Amino acid sequence: MDRFLNDNHMLMIPGPITVPPRILRVNSRPMINHRGPIFQKIHEYCVDGLKKIFKTDEGEVYIFASVGTGAMEACVSNFFNRDDRVLVLVNGNFGQRFVQIANAYGLNVDALEFVWGQYADPEKVKDHLSKYPKGTYKGVLVQHNETSTAILNDLEKLSPIIKEHGALFVVDSISGMVAAPFEMDKWKVDVVAAASQKAFGCPPGISLLGVSKEALNRANNANLPRFYFDVRKYHESYKKGQPPFTAPISLYFSLEESIKMIFEEGLDNFQKRHIVLRDSVRSAVKALGLKLVSDDSCASPVVTGVFSPEGISPQDIINTMRKDFGIVLAGGQSQFKGKIFRIGHLGFIGATEIFSTFAALELTLDKLGYKFEKGASVKAAQKVFEENM
Amino acid sequence: MDRFLNDNHMLMIPGPITVPPRILRVNSRPMINHRGPIFQKIHEYCVDGLKKIFKTDEGEVYIFASVGTGAMEACVSNFFNRDDRVLVLVNGNFGQRFVQIANAYGLNVDALEFVWGQYADPEKVKDHLSKYPKGTYKGVLVQHNETSTAILNDLEKLSPIIKEHGALFVVDSISGMVAAPFEMDKWKVDVVAAASQKAFGCPPGISLLGVSKEALNRANNANLPRFYFDVRKYHESYKKGQPPFTAPISLYFSLEESIKMIFEEGLDNFQKRHIVLRDSVRSAVKALGLKLVSDDSCASPVVTGVFSPEGISPQDIINTMRKDFGIVLAGGQSQFKGKIFRIGHLGFIGATEIFSTFAALELTLDKLGYKFEKGASVKAAQKVFEENM
Repeated sequence: MDRFLNDNHMLMIPGPITVPPRILRVNSRPMINHRGPIFQKIHEYCVDGLKKIFKTDEGEVYIFASVGTGAMEACVSNFFNRDDRVLVLVNGNFGQRFVQIANAYGLNVDALEFVWGQYADPEKVKDHLSKYPKGTYKGVLVQHNETSTAILNDLEKLSPIIKEHGALFVVDSISGMVAAPFEMDKWKVDVVAAASQKAFGCPPGISLLGVSKEALNRANNANLPRFYFDVRKYHESYKKGQPPFTAPISLYFSLEESIKMIFEEGLDNFQKRHIVLRDSVRSAVKALGLKLVSDDSCASPVVTGVFSPEGISPQDIINTMRKDFGIVLAGGQSQFKGKIFRIGHLGFIGATEIFSTFAALELTLDKLGYKFEKGASVKAAQKVFEENM
Repeated sequence: MDRFLNDNHMLMIPGPITVPPRILRVNSRPMINHRGPIFQKIHEYCVDGLKKIFKTDEGEVYIFASVGTGAMEACVSNFFNRDDRVLVLVNGNFGQRFVQIANAYGLNVDALEFVWGQYADPEKVKDHLSKYPKGTYKGVLVQHNETSTAILNDLEKLSPIIKEHGALFVVDSISGMVAAPFEMDKWKVDVVAAASQKAFGCPPGISLLGVSKEALNRANNANLPRFYFDVRKYHESYKKGQPPFTAPISLYFSLEESIKMIFEEGLDNFQKRHIVLRDSVRSAVKALGLKLVSDDSCASPVVTGVFSPEGISPQDIINTMRKDFGIVLAGGQSQFKGKIFRIGHLGFIGATEIFSTFAALELTLDKLGYKFEKGASVKAAQKVFEENM
């Protein structure tokens, strides 16, 4: 039996994730005119809801028809000038992607590298910036949640250090947004990217960009070439309640439904649930005697990285989970390739998915010859949920 | 009663269009891993099918998560160098968009303007190019089907003129592809943009880019900044049967279904059907005594522009059609705003949609005080379908 081949499977990767039935259903709603009155209402509901989720009154949130990388490009192409110097805090694959994008746009890029699996230490950032006159870096770019290494950076602590330097504070929160607390205004984030297929629980194809007033001013004077992701076009068009180009209508239906569901659960509850999911997974992994990639202090609420036991390839674990149980896990990226596997736990899932994932993982590890106490991981997960009921 | 507000309506605009049930249904299929084996099969089926539709053996077709404008930007950002001189043939709003994009990327742009509603006369293009040494223009950019003015340009005749000059032949066929015959290899088209929400009958959110060998070579040496739409990344990644970034999975399901449906009908039949749709609409419009925007010689197979009768605002026609009948028509753009309305007739529709559109349009025009022979337009449409059964 290969359940996976029959769509009857469970995505436990850090996006795209299992889309809940309510969202799947609206995704097959008939098309409407993106220049008509129904669409305008949906558009305005989404923009308004996203501003509440991003926690911004002063800034704007724009909706792009693209996947997350498009919004990451928009983080670079809109707010800087050719040859501007920027600093990227790199503790994983997506930090490296920021470096690549900034390089592609001809910026002067410095990468401040951190050990993979550890967070971007604010003290080290402070030390680094103190070596340069204020304003040397026009922007500091950082991941909120670095998906590849399963860590959450501490934006609140990084913020005053970056703002003190006089740089734009540019954040990729593609996998963090909604799941982890985020305070755009309070933390003085200037630009933040997010996407539909992570904790929003929608299909991929929409990305989001939060932009502060200061960043918008910079965009008005910045000289890098851009058109499709040009925030000025979105800003002008949104005044009329309209996207500047054809909108990805079915994905807007999904996003609208997702925002409704998030508010029905309550944003705080939504985020607390992700902490419980995280803790249950980490507790279960520890009970198996496996090593976690990230410290408890900076553990991601949406994805957990696990080192494969010695002598067992993570790809074998992933393949067995998929073939025998229809449960899809992710592998490692870049320097973690072939070393770790990752369990995504984000969106609209709960205890049931965690229980079945670990029950299946136990049988998988057993089959592959790893020795551990059977039942221990499910028990550990149960305990965490029990304590948080 | 406002049928429109209940999703119970008919989109007769030139995209997004009414998506057929088969496609809507797959759009709510559960997510799959875009790095897994099921997705790879779908991806490869789509790329292979698109190459058959674009009629290219030698070139490549790339699938972007974006709406059409993203592919138009890719037409510019990938293949030219800063300060390159390009010629845009402009006979409508989307020609102007090419000018804007090329300007945004710092190219030297000349626009060769044609009267709106007329096609880009190959003789005039020849005359213009003959004034410049060969190779002056690195590229000539043109719409295949110009949606705003409802005309179809003659790519087959333009091709030898443009290639003789030594320019890249760059085509926006966003609203033309699949509906109108297109021969990428035979017509030596170097770059062609298309999109999911036009004749493919899918929701918006996927755009397509056909790229010739020569264009790909140019891309390898071109110096404009780009990342998300960088064809080199797509080219490398497609060798492994993978998109470079997260894919818009639900839209891939739709595109796969659309391609299947196109091949089931047969590409030739699909295109002949669009000719019949076009002829029925034009014949019906003439029977109402209304003036068509475009000549018969260059009439678009996907959209028909109609001048509003004197004293009647096209917006009143559009509003009445929507409110009384749930039928959505489009207005004019730029210099045609407030002067014309447009009827889209593309994708998987047939005689029924045309009959009801004109029956409703008759009642609408009557209500707004226009004098004509009642029943004449439906009769004229019937005749065209009868002759083509």
